This record gives sequence, C-alpha cells and structure tokens, in this order.
Amino acid sequence: MRKIVIGSGGISGLKLVDAADPEPGPGEVLVLMHASSLNYRDLVTVRQAGATTPGLVPNSCGAGEVVAVGDGVRRIAVGDRVAPMFFQKWVDGRITPEARGSTLGGPIDGCLRDLMVLNEEGVTRLPDDMTFEEAATLPCAGLTAWRALVEEGNLKAGETVLVQGTGGVSIFALQFARLFGAEVIVTSSSDAKLERARALGATHVINYRQMPDWASAVRQLTGGRGVDHVVEVGGADTLQQSIASIALGGNIHVIGVLGGYVKDVDITQIFRSNGRIQGVTVGSRAMFERMLRAMHFNGIHPVIDARFPLENTADAFELMARGGHFGKIVIEH
Amino acid sequence: MRKIVIGSGGISGLKLVDAADPEPGPGEVLVLMHASSLNYRDLVTVRQAGATTPGLVPNSCGAGEVVAVGDGVRRIAVGDRVAPMFFQKWVDGRITPEARGSTLGGPIDGCLRDLMVLNEEGVTRLPDDMTFEEAATLPCAGLTAWRALVEEGNLKAGETVLVQGTGGVSIFALQFARLFGAEVIVTSSSDAKLERARALGATHVINYRQMPDWASAVRQLTGGRGVDHVVEVGGADTLQQSIASIALGGNIHVIGVLGGYVKDVDITQIFRSNGRIQGVTVGSRAMFERMLRAMHFNGIHPVIDARFPLENTADAFELMARGGHFGKIVIEH
Amino acid sequence: MRKIVIGSGGISGLKLVDAADPEPGPGEVLVLMHASSLNYRDLVTVRQAGATTPGLVPNSCGAGEVVAVGDGVRRIAVGDRVAPMFFQKWVDGRITPEARGSTLGGPIDGCLRDLMVLNEEGVTRLPDDMTFEEAATLPCAGLTAWRALVEEGNLKAGETVLVQGTGGVSIFALQFARLFGAEVIVTSSSDAKLERARALGATHVINYRQMPDWASAVRQLTGGRGVDHVVEVGGADTLQQSIASIALGGNIHVIGVLGGYVKDVDITQIFRSNGRIQGVTVGSRAMFERMLRAMHFNGIHPVIDARFPLENTADAFELMARGGHFGKIVIEH
Amino acid sequence: MRKIVIGSGGISGLKLVDAADPEPGPGEVLVLMHASSLNYRDLVTVRQAGATTPGLVPNSCGAGEVVAVGDGVRRIAVGDRVAPMFFQKWVDGRITPEARGSTLGGPIDGCLRDLMVLNEEGVTRLPDDMTFEEAATLPCAGLTAWRALVEEGNLKAGETVLVQGTGGVSIFALQFARLFGAEVIVTSSSDAKLERARALGATHVINYRQMPDWASAVRQLTGGRGVDHVVEVGGADTLQQSIASIALGGNIHVIGVLGGYVKDVDITQIFRSNGRIQGVTVGSRAMFERMLRAMHFNGIHPVIDARFPLENTADAFELMARGGHFGKIVIEH
Repeated sequence: MRKIVIGSGGISGLKLVDAADPEPGPGEVLVLMHASSLNYRDLVTVRQAGATTPGLVPNSCGAGEVVAVGDGVRRIAVGDRVAPMFFQKWVDGRITPEARGSTLGGPIDGCLRDLMVLNEEGVTRLPDDMTFEEAATLPCAGLTAWRALVEEGNLKAGETVLVQGTGGVSIFALQFARLFGAEVIVTSSSDAKLERARALGATHVINYRQMPDWASAVRQLTGGRGVDHVVEVGGADTLQQSIASIALGGNIHVIGVLGGYVKDVDITQIFRSNGRIQGVTVGSRAMFERMLRAMHFNGIHPVIDARFPLENTADAFELMARGGHFGKIVIEH
Repeated sequence: MRKIVIGSGGISGLKLVDAADPEPGPGEVLVLMHASSLNYRDLVTVRQAGATTPGLVPNSCGAGEVVAVGDGVRRIAVGDRVAPMFFQKWVDGRITPEARGSTLGGPIDGCLRDLMVLNEEGVTRLPDDMTFEEAATLPCAGLTAWRALVEEGNLKAGETVLVQGTGGVSIFALQFARLFGAEVIVTSSSDAKLERARALGATHVINYRQMPDWASAVRQLTGGRGVDHVVEVGGADTLQQSIASIALGGNIHVIGVLGGYVKDVDITQIFRSNGRIQGVTVGSRAMFERMLRAMHFNGIHPVIDARFPLENTADAFELMARGGHFGKIVIEH
Repeated sequence: MRKIVIGSGGISGLKLVDAADPEPGPGEVLVLMHASSLNYRDLVTVRQAGATTPGLVPNSCGAGEVVAVGDGVRRIAVGDRVAPMFFQKWVDGRITPEARGSTLGGPIDGCLRDLMVLNEEGVTRLPDDMTFEEAATLPCAGLTAWRALVEEGNLKAGETVLVQGTGGVSIFALQFARLFGAEVIVTSSSDAKLERARALGATHVINYRQMPDWASAVRQLTGGRGVDHVVEVGGADTLQQSIASIALGGNIHVIGVLGGYVKDVDITQIFRSNGRIQGVTVGSRAMFERMLRAMHFNGIHPVIDARFPLENTADAFELMARGGHFGKIVIEH
Repeated sequence: MRKIVIGSGGISGLKLVDAADPEPGPGEVLVLMHASSLNYRDLVTVRQAGATTPGLVPNSCGAGEVVAVGDGVRRIAVGDRVAPMFFQKWVDGRITPEARGSTLGGPIDGCLRDLMVLNEEGVTRLPDDMTFEEAATLPCAGLTAWRALVEEGNLKAGETVLVQGTGGVSIFALQFARLFGAEVIVTSSSDAKLERARALGATHVINYRQMPDWASAVRQLTGGRGVDHVVEVGGADTLQQSIASIALGGNIHVIGVLGGYVKDVDITQIFRSNGRIQGVTVGSRAMFERMLRAMHFNGIHPVIDARFPLENTADAFELMARGGHFGKIVIEH
C-alpha cells in the first residue's frame, strides 16, 4: 500500500512511500481509505517534525470502506463505510488520560495511507448518503464544532454565536449554529470569505482588518448584550476580545487551533462576565454518532473547498499554510 | 443613626458620621444592623475612593433585625433576623445586567451603618441559631464559595479541591468542600495558617513560599491526576499554575478577589486540559437560601478571625490590608 | 370595561358583563387587551365552575398594549406591547410555592376583559412583528412546549420527538422540534389533522384510531430505538404507551392537559427504560423571553385555527370542547 | 471449581456443582472470587427459574483476586483485587442497548462461583482497605444508590432524601445522603430497623405500619415542603405516596427492586409537582470508580447484615425472602 510519511523540512519533507499491506488482528478491522482531510493540527505536526516523528503518517481524519475484519469483530462488517475516530479510545462519557493519548495523526499513524488497521471500537459507520470526502472532514473539525456548541454549550435557538475566521471548525460551527436556529456573527480579514459565510447563513460579518477592535463591533451588533458563544480558535491575540464580546454568563469555547501565549488579559473581566472559558479537544464516538444523525436527518453537508490527489498532498498543506481555504481541504486516495 | 463613609485617602479617610434615620417606603423594610464584615472588594473600594465615591457607605455584607416594614410587605415581618443580599436584584435564575448593577457597598450604600432601608426582596431570613456576626460573613464570601463549588461546580464527594490562601472565600470553600466529602489542598505563605487550615479539615497543605512551583506539588499530591476544582482568587500570577493544576475536565472558579492582568498563560494548555475557567461573582438569593439550609442542618459556622467595634472600622481594614487574617473580619455595630 | 365571567352551568354560564375601569397602583401597569386565547385548562375551569369561582374571569393568556403605568414603574412604558405572564410571580430560576399560586385565569382573574392591571414584573414586551393574536397564544401553550423540549429536555438536532394530538401545546412542540432540527412523529385520530401536521414538518404521522397500539408503530418507525422525547398531554390512557415508546434514557414531558388516573402502568418498564417522566407546568418569564427571541429571529408564527369576537367566547369554548381545533383558538377583543 | 446453579423450584432448587476451571482468552482476566452478595433481583431470578435459565449462575455482585490474565491485557494485572461490573459493557456515558444486555447474574453467568473469566474492561480495581465482602455489596446496590442520588440527582448538602425501607440500596442511599450533608427520612415496618437507621444518621423515621399515609407524615416533617429526593424501591403501592411526598421540582428515583403495576396514580399530581420520575438501573464503570473514590476517601463502609458460606447460599436467599435483613447479605466463598 501507499502512505505519506513525515520527513524533515516540513511540508517539503512529506514523502509518498510503499509499505506492506497490514492485516487485522482479533477485534480489529482493515479499512481501505478513500479520502482524508487536513486540520491545522496536521500542519503543525508536519512543520514540527523532528527526530521524534519521522515516519509518522499524518492526518487524523479520513473515511473508507471495511475490507476485512479480525476474529471476534461484532460491531462492524466487511463492506461497511466508516470513519476512524480522532480519539481511538474515547467511546462515551468523559475524556480520560488513556483516551487523550490515543489520537490518530500522532502518536498513532494517521489517515494518509491506503489501508488502516483499527480496533473495531475506533471506527463509526457512515450514513449512505454521505460521501467519503464529506465524511473525511468530520472526525476532528466537525466534531470539535459540534461538541463545543451542542454537547458542552447546549446551544439553543435564538442565541448568538461568534465564529472566528472561516477555517474548517469555524464553518462547521456556522452550519451547526444555523441548524439550531441561532444567530451567527463571522469575523475574517477577507471580504470575499465573509460573503461566502453570509451565503451559508451568517447574520452579521465583521472584517477585522477594517475593524481591529471587533469586540466593540460585536457588542454593537448585539445591542450591547454580547454573544452567548464564541468559537475561539485559540489565538493569543483573540482571547482578550473574545472575553470582551460575551454576554453575561456567555461561553468561550477554546478549540485551540492556533495556540500561543495569552498576554494582557484582564482577569477581572473574566470574573465580571460570569463567563465560561472551556477547552474543547474534539469529542467522543457517542458525540460523533449524534452529530452524524443530526447532519443526516437535516441534510447538512460539509463545505469542501479544495480536493487534491494523494500524490499532491504537499500542495494541500501549502494551501492551508497560506490560509487560502474556506472550510475543508480534502485528499482523495 | 451612625454610618461610616468613604472620604479621600483610603483607609485613613474613613469617617464615622451621623445621619438622619431612614424610613421604609412601600415594599421596603428597615433593618437595625448588628454586624457587618469585610471583603477584599471593600478594601479596593475604600482605596480607590476618589471624586466619584465620597460619601459612599462601604461593605456589602452585614446582618440585623427588621424594626419596621413599609406598606404591602409580605415576605418579611418586624422582628425577623435578616441579611441584606449582595445583589439586591438577583432573586433566582441567571444573573442579569440589572442585577449586576444592584450591589451593596457600591454603587448602593453598604452595611457599615446602624439602619438600612431595603426592598423586602433584597433580604433573607436567618436561622435562629446563627449569630448576626456569623451571618454578616455570608452574603459575599460564603455565597461566592458556595456558588462556585456547589451551584456551578456540582462538587461531589471524593473530588479534590484546591483552595488558594486562607482569606474569607477560601476558608468557606474549605468548609463546604469538606461538608460534601471532598479532599482539600490549601496553599498559603504561612505555616501557621496552613496548620489552622489543616485543623479545619484540609487534607494537604502547600507553603508556596517554600514551593513556588506549587502546581507540580499539587500534581504530585494527586498521583499525577490533578484537582477537580480550583478556587482561583484571581491573581494574575496564579492562573497559569491553576491551569497546570487541574485534572482533565477540571474546573477553575475565578472569584476575582485580587485582579490584575494575566501574562504568559499558554492557551494550548487551557485547550488541552479540557478544563473550564468560570467567572463567579457571588450568587442569587435562592442560592443563598440553599447555602443557609445546608449550613444550618450540618452545623457549619463561619470562621471569624477578628472583631472590631464600628468606631474602629479603620483598624479592621488595616488588618485586611496586611493580610494578617484567616477567614473573616467582623465589625460589631 | 367589558369582561367575561364564569357563572354556573359551564360554557353556557359564561357572561359578558360591564365593570369599572381599573387603575394601576405603584409598580403596576394598565393593559388594554387586544386578544386572548383558550387553553384546555380554561375549559376545565369553566366546566368545574361552582360556588367557589363565580365571577372569575377565565383564560390565562392574552396580549395588549400598556395604556398607563403606576408610580415607580421602570421596566415598562406606556405604548409597550405586552403579554401577561401565566405565573405572575415566576421571573427566573426554579418554581416556588408562591409562584405556583400566582396564575392568571384562576385564582387571579384572567385575560377575557378589556383592561388588566398587573405588576410590571408580570408582563413581557413583545417583538414588533408579532401580532396581538399571535402573542396571545404563547404564555401558556407556547411556553409549555418550549420549557418541556428546550429548557428541561435540552432538545438537540437529530433527536426524535413524539407529539400527541394536534392541540395548542402539541403544535408548538412540533414547530419548536423542527426549529431545532429534530424529527417529529405526530399522533391523531384525524387523517385531515395529520396531513396538516405533515405540512408543518412532521416526519411521520400515526392515526391512533387505526393503530391503537401506537407505541409499536413508534418503535417500528424508529428502527426499534424509540423516541428521545414524548410530549405527553397527560391522559391516563396514554402514559403506558408513552413509556413503551421512549428510547433508553428518553424523556416524557407530562404537560397535564387532560388529567385522570393512571392505571396498569408496569413500574418495571419505567425503571428499565432509564427514562425520565417530568411534570411541566408552563414556565418562567426568563424562559418566555428566550422563546420569544428564538421565534422572532427564526420567523416562527403560532398556528391560529379560529378567531372569535369577545361576544362569542362561548362558541370558542364549544369548539375546544368538541376537539375540532388544530393549534390555537383566539378571542379578538 | 465450584459454582451455584439455578434449577427448578426456586430457592430449594439451587445446587452447588463442580465445573471445569475456565481460562482467560485474549483481553480477559481470570478472577478467584472471594465473596458475593445478594440483590432482590437475584431472588427474582432464582424464583422465576424455568426452562430458560436452568444452569445459570445467579448473583450479579462479587469480588475477588485476579489470578491470571490473557494476551493483550493492560488495565489489570495478576494480584489485583477487583469487582466485576454489573453491566459488563457500560464503561462511561449513556447506557446503550448493548450495555443493557450485558448483565451478570443473567443473561451472563453471575458471581456464585470460584472462578470467573471476564473482559478486562468489565472489572474495577478496589482500594486496599476495602474487604472482598464489602466490595461484593457494591456493584449493583451501592452503585444504584450512588447513581440515583449523586450522578442523576446532583444531591446537595441541606436537601432532604426519603429512603424506603432498609434493604441494600436503601441503606447505601442513607449513607451517601449523609456523606453529602443531606437530611434523611427512612420508612420501615419495623421499629428495630428504624432504630438502626437512626444510628446510621437518619434524621427522621416513619413506621408505615403505624402510619400508612406516610406521605402526610413526610410533608409534616418537612414543614409542608416535601422532600427533594425519594429513593423509590419501585413497589406499585408506593409510587402514589412518593409523588405526594416530593417538594416542587423534586426527584423520584425508581430503582425498581419490587416491580408491579401502578394503579390509581393521579397524573395531574405528577404534572403539578413539576417533579421528575427517573428510572435508574445500576450505573457505569466510571460512576463506580467515582463512588469507590468517595467511599475510600471518606471511610464509608457497607453495612453487612449477615454472612453465609457458599454451601449455605439457599439460607441467604431465605433470609432475603423473609425480608429479615438490614443492608446487605454476603456469601463467603
């Protein structure tokens, strides 16, 4: 089988190599991967590649078809269309340290390969009307937005959600917020992207290049009240304005795409807002199943911005590195 | 009647003056105050006193006896022993902007006076076995600890709570955590205070002078797991270690005593912990009633460290400014 | 002013009489009522009218315009379009015994009159684009459905809701469920009503005349899984099948329209389902405000089936008694 | 190894037989059982034994020592002291249909045997200071009480809990309620048992023989308010009074020990109480771990009423059938 592995030198170090076809052991399934997708986390992994990770297969998210099953497999059958779960060992309930360490795309080899062997508990069956490309965008980006707003945030119709930027998680957040009857404000530095967000249902848009103090704009758009939810992509420069943007008792869901060190946040402001800053790392298989059911019943489809063949994986990473995308970038295997 | 008013010059500017006795209007009650208590917020108010607040009566917390009621008063009767609520307009449910602005000790005149007129909805009846001095410690400090751990934090037996320091809120947090069967770790710079905390039920104590990297000590004491709750007194210097102290999915309750600007907090750490940083400003009357019921049934009494007569209010503030106290400082009227 | 009062003899005993115009006292507002609506509770009140209630003005729900305000009124101004709250004393948080006894349409005079005096805390301002007739349907029926599914039930996209019948609460439940992206199954004895339900978004419909064992039909429609929510109108004959209809951990919201004594419910079935049977009596003003915001932002309009002038109130009650309606019956004043 | 199997004829049909020693397969552990305990469910299973269950090993609950592990076992090691979980496949989160069917003591062979082979995910390690006899009482009875009050009921200090009778679940509920600082009312037909309950911390006791209308007694003891929680053992005759006993918004946890058909429950009363009737079947492994931690840290020990050797298992069942016990009955292997 073919697989993409991390070398040194970041994106340019990615290599397509051949490897032996794996076989499923007891309780395991063999999946023929048809698509995978990129997350910012994958870009960070590729860029940070050093002595410790050479040979790692990047990308946590993908989808494919089960072509063989090992002894004792019950949940899954040959022919099932499935997506591997971001956390291979988080089935339901609260996250555990063991689940925390069971992530694809590092430390466990990810989805940029033709064949994957996974524990049967680590995959979820897909609805028939969802393509592999679509499904490949969900395990990290889709589920992060779903968990933040729906599972942790108890999003309700009539609430207001602030979405930062137009990357993968942000666009899913926009779609889920609209699905629940919530109002959405989107920020971006690109008017063209803001127009696309508006077409997807954004009620208000803010170009933060033209309006660097976007928290004030948010407060004005909400009649002084502030928003109920911020999907905070986790930049050190945004948290301060996010706190200034929320309504009394509002929620900031820190999804941690960008990272960095927070500076100059007034702790009194956190306290006064009676707000909640919640760290959200993807979600459990049970949450994923609930998300799939909601998407399937309501005909929600992921927004795929660009598609690349496996051979051109580096181009896909370059696109993400440029921030040129809107929604998700997909690799077709 | 007598009252203490803020002048200029901080603590030394406090003055005991005479004023006309007030009378209750429709829906109002007149309370003869027997005790009040100090919170760090009151010290900040006194210190920041400038052109805008001269004449303000400080201190949000006190207790007394109803000596007259206005027309139409139903909930409360003459002779009732009561405590005024910190938020005069937060009865139950979520905090509102209107409630947010209805605080005693600024902008509304506080408890350092002989007589107070309050809306009947703004006071709560006290259990018979609670002294006025004890009750006077509860409306801000007691309720903040209760709301953080119990109402927001859903504290459960077997969980671990980290309490920073030995001020009013911290000691209440220690007492409530023990009431619920939780394990408690207390930090302080004073071994003497840590011994007192241990006598109140603290399982572990950490002298942060001797152990500046107290987050590591916390992790060691919890077998690497971290704590379920931190009662964060809101210092800019502590938040970073608080985040490093929590278990996966743990809670940091920011109660905002100290304030300041946060620096150098790794936002990735917030995100990875799956933790929750929640701003907590006191609580509602309904929460206060639940707290009273829990204290009364279980015989929990506030820890009063020092008592001063109304004439010596400045001495009480000096004690707090020195940080010389453990638990609460009370003024007897 | 005119008002409808209860006499003896049920519907035929309703009388339109003249009364002195009331005036607002301190903290009160005077509302010129433009519309009211009927709930099943009002029919029960009219029918049960005996020696205790003659002279009571029935109907808990209505809407009108503020034409005068008493001293000290702040929240509300002359000219405001408002709806009186079902519970005059439930602003936010949990229901209290005092709130429980503060209901319009008995014991407090209801909305079938030209002028009402109400405490300013007992009314809510309406969005501009909502007619008085529409608003008059919301305080009991709309809010009951909203509280059950949204506030208590945490309804989520992709869940399945079973709605019994096509009365006021049931149709609101159908609309709110669709607003949140949920699947809806409606039962009725009328194919014509089921068609109307389908037009409003019901995914599946069951005629319980043709399918008396509708719980089996529900289970079949859900692939054996059962539903996440039942809006149980509280008939003694339906609870058994409702319990048989829910998924593991499902919710039965007992809204108590019909009443009666439950027979032959297997308690082991309640226990095995891990389900929740929750009594729901309308809701708080804060919930009402959240519902209004959701309806306004999403353009949800109540389904009004029939309109009657105040003089013909008895005809409106006759229609409800016959069960001939679909959605709400409104009285225009 | 020895094992007890169900024959025909109820208790007298129980037989101690010899069987081949089992061996652990991949992912499995072999446990040498040192103790087991009886639940009412086991008595029902033994009594109902017909053509379908002969040969079944009864009793869901026990504890022992791991004496061998199969390939790939990671969580558990030889020498670990463990208890098998009631639901072999409910690790965390919500109960699933698959978990629902994975119960020990039927359909899966239970604990009345010397050796058990279990999936490593189906056992939990015990604290060192807990005896096997104590641990054997927890997987069903202890966990049911914990889940009802703590996990579902969010029990808080100052609340009031009504406990029906003095069987296994009821006594655990009493202990956990006291651990959380709650007030407890216990009902029984035996004054002697009520005295023992009082010694364990019950605040009030009611002999329902002398006071058949115990709901009125409960209301009187609570100043008319009612209780926050009822641990309803699920008898058809008690539900009506349980509903009449709760405060506004109170919780009835139906744990389903006794079963039967409910009659004459006024559905309007369910609705008016704004109460919640929740079916509770034991709990997940994650809940069990939290319970163990709470018991261990607070030194809570199960109340064991009687001990029997494995050979005299029938005597143990006879004691339970007579209702002669208080707390738990244990079998020593």
